[in-house]
Amino acid sequence: MAGSVLQEKLLPTLDYLLYEWLDLGALLERERFRDHDRAGITDLLGTAAEIATARYEPANRVIDDQEPRFDDGRVLLPKETQEAWDAYVDMGFLLATHDEEHGGLQLPRTADFASKIILGAASIGISPAILTEANAALLLTYGTEKQQSVFARRELAGAWTGTMCLSESQAGSSLSDITTRAVPDGAGSEDDVLGPRYRVTGDKMWISAGEHDLAENIVHLVLAKIPGPDGAVDPSTRGISLFVVPKFVVDADGALLERNDVVLVGLNHKLGYRGTPNTALSFGDGSHRPGGERGALGYLVGNPGDGLRQMFHMMNAARIEIGLGAAALGFAGYAASLDYAKQRRQGRPVTRDGKDASRPQAPIVEHADVKRMLLAQKAYAEGGIALGLYAARLLDEQQTGTADEAAEAGRLLEILTPVVKSWPSEWCLEANSLAIQVLGGSGYTRDFPVEQYWRDNRLNMIHEGTHGIQGLDLLGRKVRLEGGAYLDALASRVQRTVARAQQAGLATEADALATAWARAVATAEAAWGTGDPEDALPSATLFLQGFGHVVLAWVWLDIAAGAVAGTHPEAPGKVAAMRFFFGYELPKVGAWLDVVARRETLCRDLDVALL
Amino acid sequence: MAGSVLQEKLLPTLDYLLYEWLDLGALLERERFRDHDRAGITDLLGTAAEIATARYEPANRVIDDQEPRFDDGRVLLPKETQEAWDAYVDMGFLLATHDEEHGGLQLPRTADFASKIILGAASIGISPAILTEANAALLLTYGTEKQQSVFARRELAGAWTGTMCLSESQAGSSLSDITTRAVPDGAGSEDDVLGPRYRVTGDKMWISAGEHDLAENIVHLVLAKIPGPDGAVDPSTRGISLFVVPKFVVDADGALLERNDVVLVGLNHKLGYRGTPNTALSFGDGSHRPGGERGALGYLVGNPGDGLRQMFHMMNAARIEIGLGAAALGFAGYAASLDYAKQRRQGRPVTRDGKDASRPQAPIVEHADVKRMLLAQKAYAEGGIALGLYAARLLDEQQTGTADEAAEAGRLLEILTPVVKSWPSEWCLEANSLAIQVLGGSGYTRDFPVEQYWRDNRLNMIHEGTHGIQGLDLLGRKVRLEGGAYLDALASRVQRTVARAQQAGLATEADALATAWARAVATAEAAWGTGDPEDALPSATLFLQGFGHVVLAWVWLDIAAGAVAGTHPEAPGKVAAMRFFFGYELPKVGAWLDVVARRETLCRDLDVALL
Repeated sequence: MAGSVLQEKLLPTLDYLLYEWLDLGALLERERFRDHDRAGITDLLGTAAEIATARYEPANRVIDDQEPRFDDGRVLLPKETQEAWDAYVDMGFLLATHDEEHGGLQLPRTADFASKIILGAASIGISPAILTEANAALLLTYGTEKQQSVFARRELAGAWTGTMCLSESQAGSSLSDITTRAVPDGAGSEDDVLGPRYRVTGDKMWISAGEHDLAENIVHLVLAKIPGPDGAVDPSTRGISLFVVPKFVVDADGALLERNDVVLVGLNHKLGYRGTPNTALSFGDGSHRPGGERGALGYLVGNPGDGLRQMFHMMNAARIEIGLGAAALGFAGYAASLDYAKQRRQGRPVTRDGKDASRPQAPIVEHADVKRMLLAQKAYAEGGIALGLYAARLLDEQQTGTADEAAEAGRLLEILTPVVKSWPSEWCLEANSLAIQVLGGSGYTRDFPVEQYWRDNRLNMIHEGTHGIQGLDLLGRKVRLEGGAYLDALASRVQRTVARAQQAGLATEADALATAWARAVATAEAAWGTGDPEDALPSATLFLQGFGHVVLAWVWLDIAAGAVAGTHPEAPGKVAAMRFFFGYELPKVGAWLDVVARRETLCRDLDVALL
Repeated sequence: MAGSVLQEKLLPTLDYLLYEWLDLGALLERERFRDHDRAGITDLLGTAAEIATARYEPANRVIDDQEPRFDDGRVLLPKETQEAWDAYVDMGFLLATHDEEHGGLQLPRTADFASKIILGAASIGISPAILTEANAALLLTYGTEKQQSVFARRELAGAWTGTMCLSESQAGSSLSDITTRAVPDGAGSEDDVLGPRYRVTGDKMWISAGEHDLAENIVHLVLAKIPGPDGAVDPSTRGISLFVVPKFVVDADGALLERNDVVLVGLNHKLGYRGTPNTALSFGDGSHRPGGERGALGYLVGNPGDGLRQMFHMMNAARIEIGLGAAALGFAGYAASLDYAKQRRQGRPVTRDGKDASRPQAPIVEHADVKRMLLAQKAYAEGGIALGLYAARLLDEQQTGTADEAAEAGRLLEILTPVVKSWPSEWCLEANSLAIQVLGGSGYTRDFPVEQYWRDNRLNMIHEGTHGIQGLDLLGRKVRLEGGAYLDALASRVQRTVARAQQAGLATEADALATAWARAVATAEAAWGTGDPEDALPSATLFLQGFGHVVLAWVWLDIAAGAVAGTHPEAPGKVAAMRFFFGYELPKVGAWLDVVARRETLCRDLDVALL
């Protein structure tokens, strides 16, 4: 079966990045991945592209037009969502990276994330898979054996789905302020086979896939605080614990029993990303009372107070996937606008002799400004994809490398994750805006997909930690932890790329990258010049932007250093995108970093009354 | 009656710009405006704010939810649209700037545009007023006395509305390629009392307010080509003529007769701006046959071949209004997100001692990054409003100044119009994105207005000449015409501002502006270094962006030079916005202009196969 225009464009790019750049071939020689080879992975990505073409792309406008509806405590979704979910589950994608002992395929994350790009580009909003897999992965790391076999295994089989329930109406970025509470469920509750049993009460907000009928049960992972004997809770994040709260209560073997005390109280009506229902849930409002008691039954995961740390295990992976999803949307818009630009005839190139109106109109892809808008999209989207796959490769390295390699991969992941999440969210949104612009008036109509990509992508700067939160994480924590070891790890990689580029005849760009990197590092030092976070952090978001652009320059130069003498058909386009990035984008860095480096006080000290 | 939160915020800003900055008071002393004074104009703007609060703001979500529907050749609109239109007409806003002899009020355009900002901020999509007024203004300039009395006067009375019918499916930016044709309507047609009578046939696309029942007739201004005796047409834009084609044929006194051969063939389903129906119209398809003949009856305006020049009269005014509309949307998002940020509590400022989770959460407006996002919105939106009002002031100067003043105003309008149109379209869209970001997840829902502002605003980089077209107009024509006289006119104003700023104690910013201006001028010269448009124009859009930022720096410094020692309550906020612009925005200019100055060939010469 033939792939869509989008998939025909995407597969060669992924192939190039996986094998020519990230050397997935070498990774496949490791013991964990012994059952995989390039041909098999190519088949698997081809299958993903077929499902994307057959099930995801045709459904993408449907799930936007027919957004989730609230019906007496249930969520109604178009049938296309169920079909896409079933196809995804049937292919075993949920299990792909997991251990064979859990029924998994031990596929490298690098290849698995490539399949996610394929499906995400086709319809980012259709599937609750991301959270289900991350939810199961958390339980496989921190849960008891029983929690794993009852909950995680069923999630990975696609029989049940998962959520992460962090936010509340009054506590989004500020999780220390959650008011959801968990109290032990009476005598003997500490010995429940599924884990210490609690009654959970509280209201959660912004819960993706919090209610639906796609699967027979939903596994909520819920943050809540356990009051002390005096009824008080630790006001900080250290007071947060994590609980498994299933939609239907289950027995020790996972058989469904009665409905738990969790109810859907509302749906959020969103600008985009409409395939995934976004819900407000109430725990313990008494609508359902398992065992006749009020409060949702929940089972503690790990130890009390470990909730946020555990949840970050899930959230870091989710943040990488957010960035990849944003990049996938960027690529979808790129492919759609390129296809349009090749077919749409309008105007004529201006020459020294003026315009000759008697000639036929030219395809707009021949206009310099249209080429600029397409090349920019390519640089943003493929750069974002490359960065995300690089992060996935680091996850594989963490799992299968030597102790030193794994530790270095961990440090790189720490420093890169805020950028992997935020940079594509910002610049692939810009790519989608450029796609609209290439299509002109047509791009502003719902007859073409690009306006939806743009709406869908706007979520990515908000969920799983806003741009502002990522900036604080990067400049406030990551560049400083372990004496700057995370930043040093990345510095080594940058220096390696600079050397490679010099050998590849890209000395000008190598110098530009070295200069920009030094400027970024110096900026972080200058920001912390007084040691006071009130001086260092007011412009943390601008640091994130500037640092992000430097990271992408590094990614592009590393790709181009291999491509400049390459014979792969994708190679010349990669070099062109690198030249665009260095010629048009990297010079933007100074405007952001200078604000940070001078510890600008304008916004921090601004009298709110002047706004 | 009290105004909304939005209007309470907007009116003082407008008052400041009109009187403290643009010295509208001095303009009111001129003969044409003798019946107006500050108190009267303040009343008028207050009335506009009342209508905006009562009719426009409550309708804004309604017109988005209930987008125009196609029903058997008619367009169905929610009743709120009719109510808003009637209120607008009843207040006489359509007539406001026109001559007393035409029933007008001879209000300065500067004040009139301020009223448009008030209404546009409340609901940009609700009203077909812009095109109706511009349509009438064109006829008052180029039409016969009879065309004026029959068509223009009824439009200004709000009894009929107007359109501009330029684009066709295959001819948007490339108007030379229109295929709509006009042939004389038989013997005696040249002597029709309404003007030389033709039969018009062809299909027009993207026609705003092309069909509706808000008024009893619609006056289409249609571009078409008149075939020569051999049936051939001039392939260039010089072959384009302009025709008045009413929806209903009228007699010499304007009484409605039969339906003209113009039919609605479709509605465009848009991303935003949904209050205004956007239509595909067919002229002369035979559905209605006035006089039993096929072809829509149309009356030539001016001379054959003058069509595009005449239409530009309308289009230049429309372009200024597009920019003002974009700025109004930017301001609406600013006001909404500021209001939210003052009420929403989340997180605590980080201090040297860390966070104290036992303290109550702070309003987010106290966070430095939120202040940055708000101050950026203020700088973009109020800067865009200021620039648009400056252009309006120039229109007044053109009409009422001495011959020299009028000529200089004309030159300034020529050079500024591409920026007035494009800069707010780009940066007030960014402002709307920041408004969403301030609201976080709430901003992504349809429970708040900011996501709609963002969708609505995305149109403005497209219609009435895309960003790319504005860039070509600026760098390809405006900076070069009359030996650079347009650019010189603006240079004088910039130098005057630099001197004012130096005297006001803003020497650092004065130097920065002088440097940036010199860089922009040098960039234009370098772009044209070879004299070849193929070298000069590939990066014209980037020149537009860089030049636009320099223009806004000039606007902000000019405002701040007056505000820095001012006692008006608005003054300190203006100085803060200027400081933001110079500290965070002006440094971006080099990244754009350098690409232009080096006559970058990357995109122009890029092999399309590499995309």
